[in-house]
Amino acid sequence: MEDIVDHLAFERNKTQFDVDEMKIAGSLHAFEVSDKMARLVASDPAFRKDDRVVLDRKALFMNTLRKTAYAWKRIIELRLSEEEAAMLRSFVDQPAFTDLHWGMFVPTIKGQGTEEQQQKWLPLAHKMQIIGCYAQTELGHGSNVQGLEKTATFDPKTDEFVIHSPTLTSSKDIFLRYDFNSFDADLNSGGLVDWVSLSSCERSLDDHLPLPGITVGDIGMKFGNGAYNSMDNGVLRFDYVWIPRNQMLMRVSQVTREGKYVQSSVPRQLVYGTMVNVRQTIVSDASIALSRAVCIATRYSAVRRQFGSKKGGLETQVIDYKTQQARLFPLLASAYAFGFVGEWLKWLYMDVMKRLQTSDFSTLPEAHACTAGLKSLTTSATADGIEECRKLCGGHGYLCSSGLPELFAVYIPSCTYEGDNTVLLLQVARHLIKTISQLGSRKKPVGTTSYIGRVEQLMQYHSDFQKAEDGLKPNAVLGAFEARAAKKVIACAQNLSKFTNPEEGFQEFSVDLVEAAVAHCQLIVVSK
Amino acid sequence: MEDIVDHLAFERNKTQFDVDEMKIAGSLHAFEVSDKMARLVASDPAFRKDDRVVLDRKALFMNTLRKTAYAWKRIIELRLSEEEAAMLRSFVDQPAFTDLHWGMFVPTIKGQGTEEQQQKWLPLAHKMQIIGCYAQTELGHGSNVQGLEKTATFDPKTDEFVIHSPTLTSSKDIFLRYDFNSFDADLNSGGLVDWVSLSSCERSLDDHLPLPGITVGDIGMKFGNGAYNSMDNGVLRFDYVWIPRNQMLMRVSQVTREGKYVQSSVPRQLVYGTMVNVRQTIVSDASIALSRAVCIATRYSAVRRQFGSKKGGLETQVIDYKTQQARLFPLLASAYAFGFVGEWLKWLYMDVMKRLQTSDFSTLPEAHACTAGLKSLTTSATADGIEECRKLCGGHGYLCSSGLPELFAVYIPSCTYEGDNTVLLLQVARHLIKTISQLGSRKKPVGTTSYIGRVEQLMQYHSDFQKAEDGLKPNAVLGAFEARAAKKVIACAQNLSKFTNPEEGFQEFSVDLVEAAVAHCQLIVVSK
Repeated sequence: MEDIVDHLAFERNKTQFDVDEMKIAGSLHAFEVSDKMARLVASDPAFRKDDRVVLDRKALFMNTLRKTAYAWKRIIELRLSEEEAAMLRSFVDQPAFTDLHWGMFVPTIKGQGTEEQQQKWLPLAHKMQIIGCYAQTELGHGSNVQGLEKTATFDPKTDEFVIHSPTLTSSKDIFLRYDFNSFDADLNSGGLVDWVSLSSCERSLDDHLPLPGITVGDIGMKFGNGAYNSMDNGVLRFDYVWIPRNQMLMRVSQVTREGKYVQSSVPRQLVYGTMVNVRQTIVSDASIALSRAVCIATRYSAVRRQFGSKKGGLETQVIDYKTQQARLFPLLASAYAFGFVGEWLKWLYMDVMKRLQTSDFSTLPEAHACTAGLKSLTTSATADGIEECRKLCGGHGYLCSSGLPELFAVYIPSCTYEGDNTVLLLQVARHLIKTISQLGSRKKPVGTTSYIGRVEQLMQYHSDFQKAEDGLKPNAVLGAFEARAAKKVIACAQNLSKFTNPEEGFQEFSVDLVEAAVAHCQLIVVSK
Repeated sequence: MEDIVDHLAFERNKTQFDVDEMKIAGSLHAFEVSDKMARLVASDPAFRKDDRVVLDRKALFMNTLRKTAYAWKRIIELRLSEEEAAMLRSFVDQPAFTDLHWGMFVPTIKGQGTEEQQQKWLPLAHKMQIIGCYAQTELGHGSNVQGLEKTATFDPKTDEFVIHSPTLTSSKDIFLRYDFNSFDADLNSGGLVDWVSLSSCERSLDDHLPLPGITVGDIGMKFGNGAYNSMDNGVLRFDYVWIPRNQMLMRVSQVTREGKYVQSSVPRQLVYGTMVNVRQTIVSDASIALSRAVCIATRYSAVRRQFGSKKGGLETQVIDYKTQQARLFPLLASAYAFGFVGEWLKWLYMDVMKRLQTSDFSTLPEAHACTAGLKSLTTSATADGIEECRKLCGGHGYLCSSGLPELFAVYIPSCTYEGDNTVLLLQVARHLIKTISQLGSRKKPVGTTSYIGRVEQLMQYHSDFQKAEDGLKPNAVLGAFEARAAKKVIACAQNLSKFTNPEEGFQEFSVDLVEAAVAHCQLIVVSK
């Protein structure tokens, strides 16, 4: 290559803020870790990414195995901290069989395993001597996990559960196929039907073949060239498989030797705490994904010139066109906003967990609604935003070399996983309607719903926006968003009150309820 | 496979309209050709599509070569008509090196070649003894074709042109690499700079290697697993390549033996007629692509059940949820609307061509604006609509087996090619502003802009919509759309009138102008 020319120097020199200060916005430590790990990955040829889109499925999978093992080796060699290791994995940027091992399998054992179970499995899992996966949804049931068909029936004679997939639709899908598997099944024990997480050995640890009665398979190609094709999301089916009772994760609920189902003293709400945590991570990740897309589109727009050449001089930079700015800059602002709201959610999670330890469940419903809604809002906006950035790069955005097609393909499942975005907004709406219905009772709206306590005043709100500059006054913006959300929620509540069967009303007005939930979530983003 | 169960029978039996009549809406002949070709492709294992997403790039390319050659063989064997052949190729549904041969190369020779040139090249092209491509844009110039850097300099001594790419950015990209290539270059002949199409032999017909001075390459992987990776869009660079003068396509403009540039009596406007035709096809294709996505999502929504099970019975069909309906049904309606407007554009094209034969250019600017705007509107809506359909299929939509990821990947370039959608809307806006400025003159607004002639009356328009049912009255809807478009266009015109430099005003208010253009195009769709 010839000398590298910095085509962005001209733009960079025009900066009117302190770039270093902007970089470390939030935390110098976080920036340093991120920067160090980014350089480590970028400088190591073993982590090269350019061949990812040209490999066929098998070669891509092998490539992922090799990269993941190598990353693990480097993490040990360099004695990286847990934070650094997570950051390194994120820069390797290739979905891997270890993602659910670290992200779901280990946390599930930590959260739902007894002390004894944790001592047995966690050391093995940490050393990757067992590799776990996570299987929750079934072919026929995604959002409605309560409708799962798989059964776990306790047999007191053998002290074992019989796990069975009665139908094709009860096959688990979208999970990873490895030695160990934590999953949910419908616990059918002496007439008692409830939920249980079990950890079963899905493959033999001797030859890694599936155990008798267990069928595993790959669900086939997914969106994009590379994206999630680098891992083997699978199907899993049980044909009367017997597993020992002590492989049930028994921290939260137990089945006794006699087959009696008992709840432990550990609050079940802790499970929701975990959900809040996972979704908080998704919001922060939305900011990162959108930042990457905006960064690519902004640099392209600064370098790309088209039209407007005067007397044979340079053409106009694409970034100077108002039509480009009107599409790009709000996405840039959103990337920052999602970062801030992600930081705030991290605080919220810690606050909720602290309260749960003292059995204070008062803020949990609000925190749950809040993270559900923000997960939905930020992932939808980011998915659309990445595609918009791709279009802003013209024909060049269609090439994998722009990075944008793969970023889109790998990002979009986040609109569906961990709660379908529309289903989540309906949960937020339920919470808002409930909050309205409790006005006047002793339960005051808390946290992000506290504005609903001022609903009468907000219904009278009239915007005093006169000119564009008024949009720069934070309080004016906040007031407008509060009034908008309040008016939408109240309108829904009034419509619902006309129904004798509330559920019927909820179905009938679900589109309006989703709109109200979106307005509420946009208010949260604006207010943080 | 076991017996095939029709999971849609229940829904199908509820139909309240004549399905056969709906199928042939438009033309029985078109339906029959389409149906016959669809069955031909579906029943022939040589056209199987299921392996398309698992092949690596090279294997996919070989697969395309084989399929395309086989399709050609079948077309000859079965003596298919031109219409049937085109339909068969469309059902093979795999972008191929022949697409630009039939879609651009042959029409360019037909439209811009002299009688003699047509007689020389067309028989060879029709028998595929020469395979052509089309190279217009350059790495540095897409939308701004007037800024192309490649030069064609006439040398009267040798009676040849010298074709040269002076810079890296003047490399042609996004074209197909074959034996023959029709392209545009900046004709530099005796101080005269103009546009010219040339047909040059890019590869030797003996060994198919590039001729001296010509560099060809592949632009690399593009969005999606299969999609456009089945063809080799390329780069092309000329280093002082000499080609005979008689390889310039000389129907519209010529260079004489002495190097004098002359216009023929054939109106240059014919070139715009071709553009109208290409864009008309894109609008019809938008309807087809959106129909496919909507069909998949609708069938899925009818079969998929989630939540709402009462007493262990069946759960609710997803299609019965209002949130699903509110997202899906407008797309279904759009698919039909784009089909109707596509049919109308076909008529418009024929009308324009008929007028051009008699040198009547009066409707050309309006027809040009109209097709540009509708190309933009329908392709943007279809690209977004396919992705929305994919999300409506939940996790299943992320699998290639749903058909939606590939449909999206292969469709989205249409927002960029044949005119970037934002650039096209700005062209529409220019036409609207010009139409406004000519009010009061003898030039009356024609065709789709004729409502602008009633602008004073429309500015007074007040909607008399009282309830949802009013939306079913066609005239009420039309009136509202007319008034909305008129108000937006007038507001823009008023803003622009404040600028002494109109171009400056146009840049400043470009975002509003795009909005006005969209309102105008939506009105066209509603009115057809």
